[in-house]
Amino acid sequence: MYHFESDYVNGCLPQVLEALVTTNGDHTVGYGMDPYCQRAAELIRRACQAPDALVSFLVGGTQTNMTVIATALKPWQGVLCPESGHINVHETGAIESTGHKVLPLPSQDGKITAEQIETAWQAHWSDHTHEHMVQPGMVYLSQPTEVGTLYTLAELEAISSVCRDRNLTLYVDGARLGYALAAPSNDVTLPDLARLTDVFYIGGTKTGLLFGEAVVISDPALQTDFRYSVKQHGGMLAKGRLLGVQFGTVFQDGLYRNACQNAINCADRLRRTLKAAGIPLYAQSPTNQIFPILRKEQIERLREKYVFELWAHVDEQRDAVRFCTSWSTTEEEIAALTADLLAL
Amino acid sequence: MYHFESDYVNGCLPQVLEALVTTNGDHTVGYGMDPYCQRAAELIRRACQAPDALVSFLVGGTQTNMTVIATALKPWQGVLCPESGHINVHETGAIESTGHKVLPLPSQDGKITAEQIETAWQAHWSDHTHEHMVQPGMVYLSQPTEVGTLYTLAELEAISSVCRDRNLTLYVDGARLGYALAAPSNDVTLPDLARLTDVFYIGGTKTGLLFGEAVVISDPALQTDFRYSVKQHGGMLAKGRLLGVQFGTVFQDGLYRNACQNAINCADRLRRTLKAAGIPLYAQSPTNQIFPILRKEQIERLREKYVFELWAHVDEQRDAVRFCTSWSTTEEEIAALTADLLAL
Amino acid sequence: MYHFESDYVNGCLPQVLEALVTTNGDHTVGYGMDPYCQRAAELIRRACQAPDALVSFLVGGTQTNMTVIATALKPWQGVLCPESGHINVHETGAIESTGHKVLPLPSQDGKITAEQIETAWQAHWSDHTHEHMVQPGMVYLSQPTEVGTLYTLAELEAISSVCRDRNLTLYVDGARLGYALAAPSNDVTLPDLARLTDVFYIGGTKTGLLFGEAVVISDPALQTDFRYSVKQHGGMLAKGRLLGVQFGTVFQDGLYRNACQNAINCADRLRRTLKAAGIPLYAQSPTNQIFPILRKEQIERLREKYVFELWAHVDEQRDAVRFCTSWSTTEEEIAALTADLLAL
Amino acid sequence: MYHFESDYVNGCLPQVLEALVTTNGDHTVGYGMDPYCQRAAELIRRACQAPDALVSFLVGGTQTNMTVIATALKPWQGVLCPESGHINVHETGAIESTGHKVLPLPSQDGKITAEQIETAWQAHWSDHTHEHMVQPGMVYLSQPTEVGTLYTLAELEAISSVCRDRNLTLYVDGARLGYALAAPSNDVTLPDLARLTDVFYIGGTKTGLLFGEAVVISDPALQTDFRYSVKQHGGMLAKGRLLGVQFGTVFQDGLYRNACQNAINCADRLRRTLKAAGIPLYAQSPTNQIFPILRKEQIERLREKYVFELWAHVDEQRDAVRFCTSWSTTEEEIAALTADLLAL
Repeated sequence: MYHFESDYVNGCLPQVLEALVTTNGDHTVGYGMDPYCQRAAELIRRACQAPDALVSFLVGGTQTNMTVIATALKPWQGVLCPESGHINVHETGAIESTGHKVLPLPSQDGKITAEQIETAWQAHWSDHTHEHMVQPGMVYLSQPTEVGTLYTLAELEAISSVCRDRNLTLYVDGARLGYALAAPSNDVTLPDLARLTDVFYIGGTKTGLLFGEAVVISDPALQTDFRYSVKQHGGMLAKGRLLGVQFGTVFQDGLYRNACQNAINCADRLRRTLKAAGIPLYAQSPTNQIFPILRKEQIERLREKYVFELWAHVDEQRDAVRFCTSWSTTEEEIAALTADLLAL
Repeated sequence: MYHFESDYVNGCLPQVLEALVTTNGDHTVGYGMDPYCQRAAELIRRACQAPDALVSFLVGGTQTNMTVIATALKPWQGVLCPESGHINVHETGAIESTGHKVLPLPSQDGKITAEQIETAWQAHWSDHTHEHMVQPGMVYLSQPTEVGTLYTLAELEAISSVCRDRNLTLYVDGARLGYALAAPSNDVTLPDLARLTDVFYIGGTKTGLLFGEAVVISDPALQTDFRYSVKQHGGMLAKGRLLGVQFGTVFQDGLYRNACQNAINCADRLRRTLKAAGIPLYAQSPTNQIFPILRKEQIERLREKYVFELWAHVDEQRDAVRFCTSWSTTEEEIAALTADLLAL
Repeated sequence: MYHFESDYVNGCLPQVLEALVTTNGDHTVGYGMDPYCQRAAELIRRACQAPDALVSFLVGGTQTNMTVIATALKPWQGVLCPESGHINVHETGAIESTGHKVLPLPSQDGKITAEQIETAWQAHWSDHTHEHMVQPGMVYLSQPTEVGTLYTLAELEAISSVCRDRNLTLYVDGARLGYALAAPSNDVTLPDLARLTDVFYIGGTKTGLLFGEAVVISDPALQTDFRYSVKQHGGMLAKGRLLGVQFGTVFQDGLYRNACQNAINCADRLRRTLKAAGIPLYAQSPTNQIFPILRKEQIERLREKYVFELWAHVDEQRDAVRFCTSWSTTEEEIAALTADLLAL
Repeated sequence: MYHFESDYVNGCLPQVLEALVTTNGDHTVGYGMDPYCQRAAELIRRACQAPDALVSFLVGGTQTNMTVIATALKPWQGVLCPESGHINVHETGAIESTGHKVLPLPSQDGKITAEQIETAWQAHWSDHTHEHMVQPGMVYLSQPTEVGTLYTLAELEAISSVCRDRNLTLYVDGARLGYALAAPSNDVTLPDLARLTDVFYIGGTKTGLLFGEAVVISDPALQTDFRYSVKQHGGMLAKGRLLGVQFGTVFQDGLYRNACQNAINCADRLRRTLKAAGIPLYAQSPTNQIFPILRKEQIERLREKYVFELWAHVDEQRDAVRFCTSWSTTEEEIAALTADLLAL
């Protein structure tokens, strides 16, 4: 079987594995205070052109989201996000478990706009009963979004501007950020993210690490005591250097970017194939997730050789499915799939 | 430098590392539903003689404690524990962050007794204002304790009996459980733990894995929906199989026990040396943590070659320190240390 | 000025005040264990034909909602409710502050249907990733709803049936329940509510008491330890008898019903007047809240003599406003308003 | 029976009741924005010589404590308090339910010292693993304490000084504050409290109101958004003016002080009687709670005519009991009790 169901179905990049093997016998202090973490943090600060940022390594995405959000918000504040946002849909109420309401906004292609944020802020503060409602305190986005789309730099700048005007913390979930950075149409860089957000994270789990997310905090108020919050939320890994070793490896010599570029190249080839085959798309994703609309019998035929996700019901005859390419997708895999798609 | 400061200063057992390398390219489903996790869970159920237990793999100890305790307690219930308990002292209020009070009991050598638990229960329910106080709902112990001591089977049976009589969930934190199982004086087995507790965990992080804790749940009520709770607390690893691969490796062919046996053998040798050198101990630990009381100049001299923790102030001249042996302590390390201790 | 802005702008029914005066010097135990609370609870159990119900008195609505919901749900469960529901909109995230997600469903006239609940349940459990989503554990309704509409007995029976089939706790917020009970078109009685729900509350604050809500719990599992939950949420009034005295007064000799009947009679008269004047309504409420759509200059003219709430924007020329009648609305007030509406 | 079991067994001061009766028909806005609350707040600000303080009215003590503490603390911070503190013992874990650990310090006569606070702060910050422990963020005291003792002005000044040096919010629970203010040996005034604390509350429930506590917030950071927090914790009374009417009454013409003076006069008479009768005291309280140590047969005899609380076990023959005087204790009651005590 060929695997296109997600970007976390196998282990890690060979270089990452090798680094873990090489450093296995080293002795270091725990909890992320080791030289590997320090060096990885420094590499990331450089990549972000953010010498004053705090870089903190956590194990997974839900943990990172709940830790960041619970650190930033006051008890009566909530977090604005697209209604399709991961924190709103797929984290078993982790944010609410820390006491905060998620305030969903209608989303188009997984995105929200600066105007929507401004309107939500106005709606809250112009209501004389605002104290009876959850106060917007933060904006949560993901880059790429749940359906693989991208915010443009102009869009992100507009959002950042509203957030700063309205004293809203801006947080970007970058679980698949590497695939955004590698997409040809992308114009948002790591320095842009560090400059425009208060905090964002660079995902590792889905981009070639065994696990790990690197939180980049620009806002000094969020930096203070952030480690207390990580520990309290169960996110402080005893052998924290495992995160430093992995991120240190991919943030050296452009590996993070290159590994993700493979996924984008494969995805681009897939998109061209689908276009050639006249197969419509459910969402216009320029990154590593592709959502073709297929007839049910086509889906069944492909299932014999490929693993992929059913994404959404379209009509009686058709469903949208999701193919995910990744850092590990091979020439053989993509060749087989494109050939079979053309032959459907 | 020789490292005796803790049992999580280096990577993992070579067999564990090899298993991670070997399986790195495999494709599996995520979130712990893969065959590696299933097989590891089955091996653990067998080792525990608990065919109906649910075995769930989490990444770290604080995460495990908060997830288990928040799953078991009703909002107005708290957890009885030794005042020296990890959840009471060293988890940045993770338990309280889930809404529950930790109810500390005075502890002797890190332990509490069945009588203390019964007395606490009686004290609560005999007070006519009990609704104004936190209701005891659970008992938390660790085996070995924070200072390396062990509950005997008789002690654990008495505690289990009180807990069942009083409808208190019994939970044992086994962060260093392997070192208890390998100690000659220990008489509490894995099947005993599965039989006498409602839930306990077998620590991996400190006993030769890169990370990971295996929760063994006997109580059917706690099994239902436990995975929701894991996800909500940020403990569901995307590449969950990493936990299955590691635990599957150490729970085959007795590796878990053998690896920990090395630590105990080294610790025993150290204990004999200290006795021979006339150096008193701060706590009588039969496991891999040893707490000699040393003069300040002795401590300074040892610091030149060894890394170890300052544990407690004793008097003007002396402090207690902690030496930790582990699955990875070598003959060379222990030989050097014993020689230097005798020469102090 | 004549006051129609809400039903909690003045004090309490004269009989309630007199009872408070008469009993002021009595000495009783605190925290709701006194004979006044016992008697009031017994009167309510009788009115509900629910001899086994637990009746508990709390001070206000938000407090009641958060206490009931936090008592009933497991940590990973959420509460389904109309998107216009009070807990979703107007309680500053009180439910989320206890760790639970509010799961809003699109509402028609403030109501949701049995079908919507069944669909939401199916959607959750049919998704193979359901552990990544909040589990529906409860249904929250209000009778009357936020816009004064009523569930029919048939609707409530259908909802109750789904809830029992799907193991969802059914909770009805009766902040204005008295006005529902007094509406001619209503066919849901107190015994129906006790029989069909697991828990509901009979509002006092908006129906002639100084303050107070009476929670009626049919579900035995919710009864146990409910008082712990009340105390923990800060809802246990020291001089708890104040609640017993008030509810004991209105649940004797039909006062609760009669006081609310006055509001309904006044509201009916207002509705007839609006119809005669050709003024359209924004929502079809048969209870004490009326939502005429008025031109902006009409609103301005009425504001000179009347206090009322602006409810919703309709179009350039018109807004919907809210007039609330209550237990205390006088003949003089309603006569003045009807005359002025006819003369607009 | 004569009632000495607590100071909340009967209703309210006749002047308070009269004010509630007189204002019953008035129409005002809700939720504490009415002129009665504004005027009461102004009277309290004047009594505190604190023109910039925010005065907010809540219904009860537990609600007030949890609201204030949850507003002030960051998620990973806890509140230092005497181990006998109300929040540590008698609030069913309300503080922990908001996510915060209560950090108890050994208390002498219900009190803690500036030195203890400084030591706790030092212990936290000097530990290199401090991020693994709950950070002290606040100090909670009560005046008078749980056993009726008082902090002197010098003690409170020392505590305030440490708190300001160490950035700890200082909060004083004044559930029975009126009885402290009226005690001859007291030297801490309302202006002192407003000056030395960040926030404190003036209890009404136990000093002659039906219910109500007035929170006085000096710290500007705590003032902002405090009403959101009150609403979220279910503490915003719909007919909020009931609190304003009551506090406005007692803070005019010295009624608060005078009413409490009655309790102190009665208590002083009781203390003199006990001394004359050679009956020892369990705690040296100069306020309205008195703790004689009586033989069990004496207790039984007194129980025939008097209601009072059993406080603590002393020895085989003797228990400590508590007699509470209050704003409502009459000459007849105290005369009877003193006579019977002398005749024991």
